[in-house]
Amino acid sequence: MLAVGIDVGGTKVLGVRLERVGGRVRVAERIHLPVARGHADSSDGVAAQVADVAAVLSVDTPGIPIGVGLAGFVGTDGVAARSPNVPQVVGVDLGAALHERLGVRPLVDNDANCVATAALALRTPRVSDLVAVTFGTGIGGGLVAGGELLRGSRGFAGEPGHMVVVRDGIPCVCGQSGCWERYASGARLSELATEAFAGGRVAGPDADRSGRSIGSRSARPGELLVEAARAGDAGALEVLAEFSGWLAVGLSNLVNLLDPELLVIGGGLSSALDVLSEPLTGHLASNPTISDRVPPLEAAPMAEASGAVGAALMAMRGAGTDPRPDPTARPGQ
Amino acid sequence: MLAVGIDVGGTKVLGVRLERVGGRVRVAERIHLPVARGHADSSDGVAAQVADVAAVLSVDTPGIPIGVGLAGFVGTDGVAARSPNVPQVVGVDLGAALHERLGVRPLVDNDANCVATAALALRTPRVSDLVAVTFGTGIGGGLVAGGELLRGSRGFAGEPGHMVVVRDGIPCVCGQSGCWERYASGARLSELATEAFAGGRVAGPDADRSGRSIGSRSARPGELLVEAARAGDAGALEVLAEFSGWLAVGLSNLVNLLDPELLVIGGGLSSALDVLSEPLTGHLASNPTISDRVPPLEAAPMAEASGAVGAALMAMRGAGTDPRPDPTARPGQ
Repeated sequence: MLAVGIDVGGTKVLGVRLERVGGRVRVAERIHLPVARGHADSSDGVAAQVADVAAVLSVDTPGIPIGVGLAGFVGTDGVAARSPNVPQVVGVDLGAALHERLGVRPLVDNDANCVATAALALRTPRVSDLVAVTFGTGIGGGLVAGGELLRGSRGFAGEPGHMVVVRDGIPCVCGQSGCWERYASGARLSELATEAFAGGRVAGPDADRSGRSIGSRSARPGELLVEAARAGDAGALEVLAEFSGWLAVGLSNLVNLLDPELLVIGGGLSSALDVLSEPLTGHLASNPTISDRVPPLEAAPMAEASGAVGAALMAMRGAGTDPRPDPTARPGQ
Repeated sequence: MLAVGIDVGGTKVLGVRLERVGGRVRVAERIHLPVARGHADSSDGVAAQVADVAAVLSVDTPGIPIGVGLAGFVGTDGVAARSPNVPQVVGVDLGAALHERLGVRPLVDNDANCVATAALALRTPRVSDLVAVTFGTGIGGGLVAGGELLRGSRGFAGEPGHMVVVRDGIPCVCGQSGCWERYASGARLSELATEAFAGGRVAGPDADRSGRSIGSRSARPGELLVEAARAGDAGALEVLAEFSGWLAVGLSNLVNLLDPELLVIGGGLSSALDVLSEPLTGHLASNPTISDRVPPLEAAPMAEASGAVGAALMAMRGAGTDPRPDPTARPGQ
């Protein structure tokens, strides 16, 4: 039992307990729940939920290190100062809540920083300059240069989701307009899928029987669209080709800013890389500013569990359980 | 005589020789020329021009360290792999040219990295997380985290000018469309000024006499517009307010990505910060994603000479002339 990691996103909470088997880290146990929508301090709030998940995962191993990744602007104090997609975590001191409940001070960080940490720690061969981007309800980022996470002056570095790519474009939940995540998140793909099914551009899975497209009947239209694309549906492939153009806009900007060796794709979209890679790489390769140095695109290690795994790895290192140099150390501190 | 620095931009070459007086670095001599447009290898090419400027500035001190800043994507080999705004420098081995002519191997880097180095070295109090942005013919960037320049995997990090802020927007010389530098460079301000004078939105300096606006008669319409704004011209102030909205879009993106302590403004626009600061800070402060942490905006040290000064400082350190720790060292190398 190495550590517990919990990833809190816009729609789900994913918890893991890591163990080491034969020198390799693996997920021994996993919990997946819808994120609590209740008030921060109430018994149905996110702090209570995270504490419950941590309690379940650490029941046999009291005192095990616990890491938490949050989809939000997490400051150096481990508290989210803002979170456009999970507003119920803003200002919540998960550290205090878990300490009170379990007697352990968790490490709390941005979820995409956790994904970047997982990629830094688990990928072979190791790379020292990578950008991890999580595509879920929103878009998060974990930027690594010279083997170290870029934190910025207050811990808020790495928010590509709120990089404006269309000035005065689609209004964002953050208050700006034209943020990249309005065009390229997993949530956006679901919107596009819903439209495509409703408009008959792609046949829904039960179109044969009902003669009508699936539209809002599906809880996860993005996944259904990806399945249709895998099955060769021309309309679905077309939607993904257009959508991957939006993915490419922001990824190109990140390459122009950070020139990484590797782009790590986390969040829900990471499981769709099999159908997204080709159109996306095509868009990147035809961009004249980066065509000669398009970094490889890879799904985050352990796919959707990457954020939770990275949070656990960070906590392990914070607690001194792992002898390797700390990849999350801040420069200059 | 400490070092010679030469900054090669889209329109001008600026060379300086630094000296130290009473513990402070100052510019002892300065040369300012239009950039050579000739073929790379010809006698009227940029390599010959840079060598000439270096020869003039180092005439009394053969062997003095020489640094060169280029507006372009300069690789780790000191050669520009691409340069949308100074295409005549692409592929030119200035190192070899200067070595042949003067027997000195110069340090060659991106011009905005030089500006960032000048800010790192000369600003008091020192800061360790800053973003330097140069606004001239194009827009360049020098990103500093934990006191170190971010280089990326091949030396090309820090190109915010080609960050797309309007997908499918104005075509850029780089081949993309909607790049930030098409909306917010010094050259763009000159275009806006030319339009404003031509359309009568702002009275040109000789409008009283001729009854016609100055339009294309001015070689530097951007500067005339800034002067008109300083004199309180309402039309000029309006143009700058709109323009500063475009400055804010890219700077906000950089704050969301890198969370710097300080934004350093270099290039021609740095001399207009007196009239640009207020509307620009207003735009930044009203951006909900960064409103609580807008970094201070400062003109680069030594204003337009900052790139040349930074190049000289880099060369000095490369040559071991300065005992302070090297702020340009690459992480992991």
